[in-house]
Amino acid sequence: MKIFHYDTVKAQDAEGGAAKTTIRWLITKEIGAENFAMRLFEMEPSGHSPLHTHQWEHEVFILEGKGQLFDGAKSTPFSAGDVIFIPGNEQHQFKNTGQKLLRFLCLVPYTWE
Amino acid sequence: MKIFHYDTVKAQDAEGGAAKTTIRWLITKEIGAENFAMRLFEMEPSGHSPLHTHQWEHEVFILEGKGQLFDGAKSTPFSAGDVIFIPGNEQHQFKNTGQKLLRFLCLVPYTWE
Repeated sequence: MKIFHYDTVKAQDAEGGAAKTTIRWLITKEIGAENFAMRLFEMEPSGHSPLHTHQWEHEVFILEGKGQLFDGAKSTPFSAGDVIFIPGNEQHQFKNTGQKLLRFLCLVPYTWE
Repeated sequence: MKIFHYDTVKAQDAEGGAAKTTIRWLITKEIGAENFAMRLFEMEPSGHSPLHTHQWEHEVFILEGKGQLFDGAKSTPFSAGDVIFIPGNEQHQFKNTGQKLLRFLCLVPYTWE
């Protein structure tokens, strides 16, 4: 088993059209997780992920802050303690609409590769 | 997509030898998650999960509180912000060794069934 604080994992700039957002790959195949990966995102105020669609699902837990999830047509607010499930093939974009840092976990199956 | 606060999901007593511990099944096959499930555990002071082993892995994020992870031989402390990966077939037991509630996410692949 492995135990480590999330901040010991390097924060990398999120790519693919994200703004003011970093990603930490916390649990991955490299440490033996064959089925799904745990990532932690940190998004500054006015930051966002790209509006995009892909085959794999997201399982999300909002740790801190608040924002909105945009599906291409409408936005739905969320805040700390919220759980979000985005099935595969649904358009989505996370936005930090608050004044403070937004921090959330987002897990993906290894079918994303 | 679905957005809901974790406390809207009913907390059930954790079974199989756990003490002073509840589980909420936040994201499951029932809402379309085919690959892995997100659960939230709340463990009162002196509460614990069973010391057990199974084929599937755990991906854990400690939201609040502190405790120890026992592998059958030694205990390792953890606290809020820690990430824990327990590969399949490794003995493990979570214990709340603090004075406050321990709250953590624990995700499992659907190969656990």
